[in-house]
Amino acid sequence: MTPAPASAPAPWRRGASFHAMWRDLLPIGRSPGGGYRRHAWTDADAECRAWFREQAVARGLAYEVDRNGNQWAWLGDGAAGDAVVTGSHLDSVPDGGAFDGPLGVVSAFAALDDLHERDARPTRPLAVVNFVDEEGARFGLACVGSRLTTGGLTAERARALRDAEGTSLPRAMERAGHDPDAIGADPERLARVGAFVELHIEQGRNLAVAPGDHPVGVASAIWPHGRWRFDFHGEANHAGTTRLEDRRDPMLTYANTVLAARKKARLAGALATFGKVAVEPGGVNAIASLVRGWLDSRAPDEETLAAVVAEIERAAVERGTRDGVRVTVTRESFTPVVEFAHDLRDRLARLLGGAPVLPTGAGHDAGILSTAVPTAMLYVRNPTGVSHSPAEFAEEDDCAAGVRALADVLEDLACR
Amino acid sequence: MTPAPASAPAPWRRGASFHAMWRDLLPIGRSPGGGYRRHAWTDADAECRAWFREQAVARGLAYEVDRNGNQWAWLGDGAAGDAVVTGSHLDSVPDGGAFDGPLGVVSAFAALDDLHERDARPTRPLAVVNFVDEEGARFGLACVGSRLTTGGLTAERARALRDAEGTSLPRAMERAGHDPDAIGADPERLARVGAFVELHIEQGRNLAVAPGDHPVGVASAIWPHGRWRFDFHGEANHAGTTRLEDRRDPMLTYANTVLAARKKARLAGALATFGKVAVEPGGVNAIASLVRGWLDSRAPDEETLAAVVAEIERAAVERGTRDGVRVTVTRESFTPVVEFAHDLRDRLARLLGGAPVLPTGAGHDAGILSTAVPTAMLYVRNPTGVSHSPAEFAEEDDCAAGVRALADVLEDLACR
Repeated sequence: MTPAPASAPAPWRRGASFHAMWRDLLPIGRSPGGGYRRHAWTDADAECRAWFREQAVARGLAYEVDRNGNQWAWLGDGAAGDAVVTGSHLDSVPDGGAFDGPLGVVSAFAALDDLHERDARPTRPLAVVNFVDEEGARFGLACVGSRLTTGGLTAERARALRDAEGTSLPRAMERAGHDPDAIGADPERLARVGAFVELHIEQGRNLAVAPGDHPVGVASAIWPHGRWRFDFHGEANHAGTTRLEDRRDPMLTYANTVLAARKKARLAGALATFGKVAVEPGGVNAIASLVRGWLDSRAPDEETLAAVVAEIERAAVERGTRDGVRVTVTRESFTPVVEFAHDLRDRLARLLGGAPVLPTGAGHDAGILSTAVPTAMLYVRNPTGVSHSPAEFAEEDDCAAGVRALADVLEDLACR
Repeated sequence: MTPAPASAPAPWRRGASFHAMWRDLLPIGRSPGGGYRRHAWTDADAECRAWFREQAVARGLAYEVDRNGNQWAWLGDGAAGDAVVTGSHLDSVPDGGAFDGPLGVVSAFAALDDLHERDARPTRPLAVVNFVDEEGARFGLACVGSRLTTGGLTAERARALRDAEGTSLPRAMERAGHDPDAIGADPERLARVGAFVELHIEQGRNLAVAPGDHPVGVASAIWPHGRWRFDFHGEANHAGTTRLEDRRDPMLTYANTVLAARKKARLAGALATFGKVAVEPGGVNAIASLVRGWLDSRAPDEETLAAVVAEIERAAVERGTRDGVRVTVTRESFTPVVEFAHDLRDRLARLLGGAPVLPTGAGHDAGILSTAVPTAMLYVRNPTGVSHSPAEFAEEDDCAAGVRALADVLEDLACR
């Protein structure tokens, strides 16, 4: 490994570099309530990106930003191909936690420091990547940076994305100093990547409740998942004068559908959530004319997912008939099941001493990358399972175990 | 009656003045969807107010704006006292209809024109009034103009009202050209009023379904009513990774409460509506941390209302216990039952040939005024009962019958 320049901070020793990086990131984009608002191409995002660049430069890594705004830090010659790449994202959901995304990026740099400490000699190029706009909090579509790069999202569709203020993605990129003209599929860059490994905090309690003591696990698959918009069309009316029997109140149909979704998901071993709702006209003394609820649903396989959503729709339509409410359902997004490369997955699980192999319901850049290159994920134990919340948390010892595990994986893949 | 000046439009003849006034008001503040957005102290409201001033001036009536922004048009000397006042409001709910409010103001001017036609000679002063901000659509509190005037709302509390953009009521008044310094109780002005009669489109189908043919009815009472904010506190989490059994999802508790409210109201012969809801964080892939739902409830008497709300709260807390969700309930407003003056009510019903006498669940400026002066209300038949909606509607013949009835009442009260 190329020695870091003399001006670089002291290399990783018992977590020193991890702690310093974590401390630097912690205040960026933090809201008064303690949650993070690091949405793509905002000032908070720019601060995170500046931090990434500093980490690359301080270690003497070759820093570059690709056409889609993803940041890369190369150790060795990327153009040589067959690189082992690790990293994650630095953006957040609204009022998200500190770990989802940043833990993978910080651990990636810390793992390189660890390799340096071990005096490991890479035989393949290594890189740390920060994929831009993973959460999709601002423009409504997740994994924009990785999707553009693989071609899963066309430049045309990306150009049409707008945030709540009506700012287009290209305009937001431009304002943040990134030229949006060249966005789009980037097969040359993907061709450099021989394997991608993303470390991520677990977003559930599978590791926490697994028998034994497992700070780190390996991903098996990402459940198929999607978003469906349910529009409940009723009739606006005065809440103080309209007899109950004369009402066509879509809030009732919505409420019944929320409860039906939970029940159908439970029976099928799936997940179903209504976390966003919009009401028109939305006055306290007005019966709603329209309630829009967004269903997020996920299941172990696509057949189960389709069946659960169909049952929820059926329950909504049935109740709508009773309420005089018309129901329409629009699929807004769908991501098929992702099976991570089996040989890589099994190699990692063996290397990490029989780490648990777990599926997840959450989408990741690794899921997008897996369509193009051999991809794996490591999960770090989450004692409460809380995710997308300021209360999201991993123990310090487990984070350190995650860094060691990632260093082991990089050494195994790139240094032998 | 003082003859209108030569420049005035032709007096009321077979609805001519009614039609002309209606036509002038119709385009003001109309949204592309056909609903009205005439919120207090906005540009649309200013246009409505300019229209009112023109109507007063064109008829040679003495125009004035009181300290709270209510508009008055006087026929005869208001300072003489014992005046008969009629009118309503010109503001609207979000995407409201054309009739709620404006029908009462237009009919008031048209009734004066009718009296002029009849050559009736007033022996008491007469006035048309436009109470500002009846709907409370902008600052969240209904009947601000009439409440300030009677002292039911203190100037201090009114000054603290803010709209969704954070603009205070005084600032909004100032921007609209009204000096907010003098807002507050106005006993001198109230002392001029001997009786107040408000004509209003019915906001239900009682007249439409009553046996016989009754285009006009008389109000008996306004049901007690109130608004309660239900806060459902759960835990934000990832919708794709959190096991159903690990969730504390407040959307479930909210949904169950919506359905319980309907059921409890039905069993008690009351009304209960959730028409407004706010969710945090409100992401499609995030389990909500907080759902806020506003309950509007009304009942024939205060005891029933209190019992219904208590039962809804009990159902919410009970379900919350199952969901791991904490429920808090805050009463945001409450209006006791209003019984309109019995002698005035009975006199009007007799005068109008046995018009039906009806209660209503809707609040009105007349309900506020009734705490200070003898007050009555006339309802004009609403064939569909639809209210607070662009589909709100009254037949032309019924509107004309309303004007005639109001003129009969004014003649009876003020011209004999």
